[in-house]
Amino acid sequence: MTDHTKPILVFQTDFTYKEGAVSSMYGVVKSVDRTLEIIDGTHELPQYDIWSASYRLNQSLKFWPAGTIYVSVVDPGVGTARRACVAKITGGYYVVTPDNGSLTHIARDLGIEEVREIDETVNRLRGKDTEGVAIFHGRDLFGYTAARLASGIIDYEGVGPAYPVSEIVKLPLPKPIAENGKITGIIEIDDPNFGNAWTNIPLKMMQENGFSYGQKLPVEIRNGNEVIFAQEILFDKAFGCVEKGEPILYNNELMNAAFAVCMGSFTQKYNVSYGGDWTVTIG
Amino acid sequence: MTDHTKPILVFQTDFTYKEGAVSSMYGVVKSVDRTLEIIDGTHELPQYDIWSASYRLNQSLKFWPAGTIYVSVVDPGVGTARRACVAKITGGYYVVTPDNGSLTHIARDLGIEEVREIDETVNRLRGKDTEGVAIFHGRDLFGYTAARLASGIIDYEGVGPAYPVSEIVKLPLPKPIAENGKITGIIEIDDPNFGNAWTNIPLKMMQENGFSYGQKLPVEIRNGNEVIFAQEILFDKAFGCVEKGEPILYNNELMNAAFAVCMGSFTQKYNVSYGGDWTVTIG
Amino acid sequence: MTDHTKPILVFQTDFTYKEGAVSSMYGVVKSVDRTLEIIDGTHELPQYDIWSASYRLNQSLKFWPAGTIYVSVVDPGVGTARRACVAKITGGYYVVTPDNGSLTHIARDLGIEEVREIDETVNRLRGKDTEGVAIFHGRDLFGYTAARLASGIIDYEGVGPAYPVSEIVKLPLPKPIAENGKITGIIEIDDPNFGNAWTNIPLKMMQENGFSYGQKLPVEIRNGNEVIFAQEILFDKAFGCVEKGEPILYNNELMNAAFAVCMGSFTQKYNVSYGGDWTVTIG
Repeated sequence: MTDHTKPILVFQTDFTYKEGAVSSMYGVVKSVDRTLEIIDGTHELPQYDIWSASYRLNQSLKFWPAGTIYVSVVDPGVGTARRACVAKITGGYYVVTPDNGSLTHIARDLGIEEVREIDETVNRLRGKDTEGVAIFHGRDLFGYTAARLASGIIDYEGVGPAYPVSEIVKLPLPKPIAENGKITGIIEIDDPNFGNAWTNIPLKMMQENGFSYGQKLPVEIRNGNEVIFAQEILFDKAFGCVEKGEPILYNNELMNAAFAVCMGSFTQKYNVSYGGDWTVTIG
Repeated sequence: MTDHTKPILVFQTDFTYKEGAVSSMYGVVKSVDRTLEIIDGTHELPQYDIWSASYRLNQSLKFWPAGTIYVSVVDPGVGTARRACVAKITGGYYVVTPDNGSLTHIARDLGIEEVREIDETVNRLRGKDTEGVAIFHGRDLFGYTAARLASGIIDYEGVGPAYPVSEIVKLPLPKPIAENGKITGIIEIDDPNFGNAWTNIPLKMMQENGFSYGQKLPVEIRNGNEVIFAQEILFDKAFGCVEKGEPILYNNELMNAAFAVCMGSFTQKYNVSYGGDWTVTIG
Repeated sequence: MTDHTKPILVFQTDFTYKEGAVSSMYGVVKSVDRTLEIIDGTHELPQYDIWSASYRLNQSLKFWPAGTIYVSVVDPGVGTARRACVAKITGGYYVVTPDNGSLTHIARDLGIEEVREIDETVNRLRGKDTEGVAIFHGRDLFGYTAARLASGIIDYEGVGPAYPVSEIVKLPLPKPIAENGKITGIIEIDDPNFGNAWTNIPLKMMQENGFSYGQKLPVEIRNGNEVIFAQEILFDKAFGCVEKGEPILYNNELMNAAFAVCMGSFTQKYNVSYGGDWTVTIG
């Protein structure tokens, strides 16, 4: 029977379900311990996009019960020198991941208490004609180690040697700035489904700056120096506050300012993407 | 351990797995009660398409065990005045959904015994920096309430106040008509994977009208007044009854007349879509 | 509670999650026995592609615990004369599938001990207005029978009559050949996500032929007689051994020679596909 005294395993990868990789990985988990509970986080992260992996982990982890083990595998450097690790996160979580930047947002928002490098001499799948495989650590290393940890076959010390938290690889993470009545931040990520654009500007900062629901606010979005979008748009709480097809500035699910088009795609309509060179000024 | 004395939770949304929304929603469920069983219905409903939500709910619900709680979130009006509800369905099911039309087909085919509006003062996620969020009721309201109901933290009365079943929002649902040896109906939905077109004409009506497998039947499909497809095609039981690439009129999984191309896409080959203005005449 | 004394059910199909088919199929399983554990293998196999079904089954099955029941439904011949079967696989697995070629790779690599034709008079869903449906054996026959077998309602003999293993439908499966210092094989499958091309040439054969990591090897890929790719490329263990955008010959997750582009798509960049007419010569 599914043993709920053991942590849940949630997986996010860029593997997709188009072929047999996820099934093989989950089979390994269930072969370690049949009673473990596996849940899909997502297997549709953009390929090689460590930034998205880091953002999505941070978006979701805090909603899971304490103890949950999140396996995050976006791993363009698989089989090269990057570390494979298990990080202990404030709140009682564990993240099993290549240490390639995927812990960036979690480190900022939740905090990392400890990190250990996975000892491949102990925590690597053996047999089943896998021992010469260098390119599938999701199956052979991360999934396998997460299952052993969840099952209690190893404790956290059993993952491998600790290393300084300060050595964890971090991507640059710009902060929003308020001055002269304006706030400048970045488009930190998109919602690739509905086409929304999420900034790194907290609702709280908007409010402290005197912006409130119902106001029309000047918005400028730039890619480098090029102005991509410049309009006054309504700041309000939900998409339905504007007509279908109209842009809106709203408070997203993580309490940050974000842009949407009512029943449409903001990113497609206005050719907006995300990253450090996509800056936004409100006010 | 997964507690099978508690109802299964099945989820259908238009969220996709492209980002972290589903993971956050499921994390909330598991935080309410670790022992609940969550199963994906689908997260790939067409965006904002309440009609599809209603159809898919009806297509699948009756195959689940009595007691199953189906959460359906296609919710373009999230954060506006539409009701959030839990409907009690004949057969012992519950559907947790915005009351925006998604109960249309279920009301016709299974029947709705009672409906209650979710009381947000009781049944809404608190904490985790979510209380100012107006646009993610899948996580903060529907998933959370469904988990509380499945777990037994609330009973059905605990959802919130009942309101008249007659007030449930329903989309117009045309009926097929048989006259002068012909049957006229609509293309009610497509199969977006295989490209089949499903009518609202029951097999039983076809049989009562004297149509039987092995016959070639005249078919006309119109979009408004424009004739899109007009051919005599074989009426038979399975795709393999015609050659690869040939159209067929068959009995679909819900015992309705439907159109397919053997190992091809009827909707793409003939440019056919679905909805009230897509009419079909057979005979 | 999920009963882990009962086998896991893993499903792979070409149904996708775009509509309600998977939900209906899983609902039937849960209606047979609420305590069964269902896991997605994949529902995104290429449509009608029995070859892919056979390959993916073989790619994943051996990583699951003994006893696992794998349901594989790519079934363009549904409702026609092809057999529906349950095969008993060496290692203690069962595969529930149309006997249309999907057992080809498993027969070669794991071995089939016994096969039985599903007796529709016993092992077919009744009621719920399904008895006239001929086109959804995933729901009405394969899923239902797998659930009954996993639940212990029937034993293996209860599936239906055995037939000779030699009668199982097999697709032609070419073998790689080493001669004059060269190895010739085929591109047996792609990785449709990352765009890798997987050959049928085992790493062991590469090594026995004197090829080793770090060497540049001449590679020619042909579609029929037409040369599609002809370059000397590095043979090494992981994608990161070459620069971004460069091709590499590596050892894939099944210990076969494969082609990739570092952080790119080999199949797209070089217009390479898979199948018996896609031959490759190395050396």
